[in-house]
Amino acid sequence: MKIARFSHGESISFGVLDEEESELVVLKADPMYAGYEPTGQRVALADATLLAPVIPRSKIVAVGKNYRDHAAEMGGEAPTEPLLFLKPNTSVIGTADIIVLPPQSEQVEHEGEVAVVIGRVAKNVSEADAAGVVFGYTIANDVTARDLQRRDGQWSRAKGFDTFCPLGPVIDTDLDLEAGTIETRVNGEVRQHGSLSDMVHSIPAIIAYASSVFTLLPGDVILTGTPAGVGPLVDGDVVEVEVSGLGTLTNTARRM
Amino acid sequence: MKIARFSHGESISFGVLDEEESELVVLKADPMYAGYEPTGQRVALADATLLAPVIPRSKIVAVGKNYRDHAAEMGGEAPTEPLLFLKPNTSVIGTADIIVLPPQSEQVEHEGEVAVVIGRVAKNVSEADAAGVVFGYTIANDVTARDLQRRDGQWSRAKGFDTFCPLGPVIDTDLDLEAGTIETRVNGEVRQHGSLSDMVHSIPAIIAYASSVFTLLPGDVILTGTPAGVGPLVDGDVVEVEVSGLGTLTNTARRM
Repeated sequence: MKIARFSHGESISFGVLDEEESELVVLKADPMYAGYEPTGQRVALADATLLAPVIPRSKIVAVGKNYRDHAAEMGGEAPTEPLLFLKPNTSVIGTADIIVLPPQSEQVEHEGEVAVVIGRVAKNVSEADAAGVVFGYTIANDVTARDLQRRDGQWSRAKGFDTFCPLGPVIDTDLDLEAGTIETRVNGEVRQHGSLSDMVHSIPAIIAYASSVFTLLPGDVILTGTPAGVGPLVDGDVVEVEVSGLGTLTNTARRM
Repeated sequence: MKIARFSHGESISFGVLDEEESELVVLKADPMYAGYEPTGQRVALADATLLAPVIPRSKIVAVGKNYRDHAAEMGGEAPTEPLLFLKPNTSVIGTADIIVLPPQSEQVEHEGEVAVVIGRVAKNVSEADAAGVVFGYTIANDVTARDLQRRDGQWSRAKGFDTFCPLGPVIDTDLDLEAGTIETRVNGEVRQHGSLSDMVHSIPAIIAYASSVFTLLPGDVILTGTPAGVGPLVDGDVVEVEVSGLGTLTNTARRM
């Protein structure tokens, strides 16, 4: 099932994409908390403005260097344990929203990633039980001011600017990710391409590890790392992150 | 005005401490959003269980190495710009709650700090206007697993465990911090003692800097750094952080 959060006229709703992926079956409330009760209304996908499909109430947990080829391009090896960092919920935008290039940085880069949306309160979850706390999957762009990341040492500022966490376009609640691929394009040119099976730490392993530190809450999002090929975004660039089965997350970068 | 959030019997309320600091004047709702409308009820402070005075809906922004003597003991100089990192809202506890020493760490340390509670949406606020977005001040303990901080390089895990952000006991909305001191004691022994005037980056400067990166939301909390003298907490230790005019934040550490 593919779930969207969208605005249509004056209202903001959640909806389920129909089989043709042309219409949204409007739901009474957020299905993460309220199940799948339809209002009876349908909205053409073409008439809906998609929003970030989830607003994390608590946190975005991200994993650094989780593909060997990207760890190598950053000048290191993949860590033996997941390397966790946090992005604030104020960095979240949806597909088609603008990534604002901040005046503090001259080197903002894209990092296309698969994102896990947590659906249940989770603490000390085992790898075997990890799937049970997942609400679904979406796509993320872990936008990073590379120059500030190097200068600060800590990554919170470089990865935490407003608009630096595009999420979307939808949440898929029953995707098989094992055989999937992820590709990031800038102005149509392929910059990153990877197999999801190349992750160093698997999604269940990451959930188990993160939940041994933080209580994960419904709506928390986990970013699972990016493959090699990260590169700059300049004013006017259109960046697309495509994951097989999940669609394409598209954003334009702008220096305001 | 000193504001507390507390439980009393079955209910959780906000209240204002009376002049004798013996009773809480119960408010109808969170004064950050709803102003100071009293219910007419009063609760003796001795009968109330104080909770964290604010639950950050979005983020806790913290500043590393903001006292020169602490930067020196960590083996470095104070950064020329505030060094920002994030703690998740799931790490927050109140005064008298237990700091849980996690099995992953053998070296959990206290860091007594002044915390700023943000009261208004703030983006690109100038130093001159910073006071206008402050709701009040409270005390924080930026509990840190020092061994994991060193091992990970990134501080999110080491400083993000559940219970690693005690806040309280109350929020003071009109404190003059300039002349204040901060002291951290473990089992009554003074471990950290500093003057708030020794901060490298002032509170207005930190607010201006943080708001140039993140949109600050009402309920966000900013931790302003710790003076020298950080040290270990072991099972059973009682750690107190006292700030002049703000009272004392007291927590016991437990290895469960």
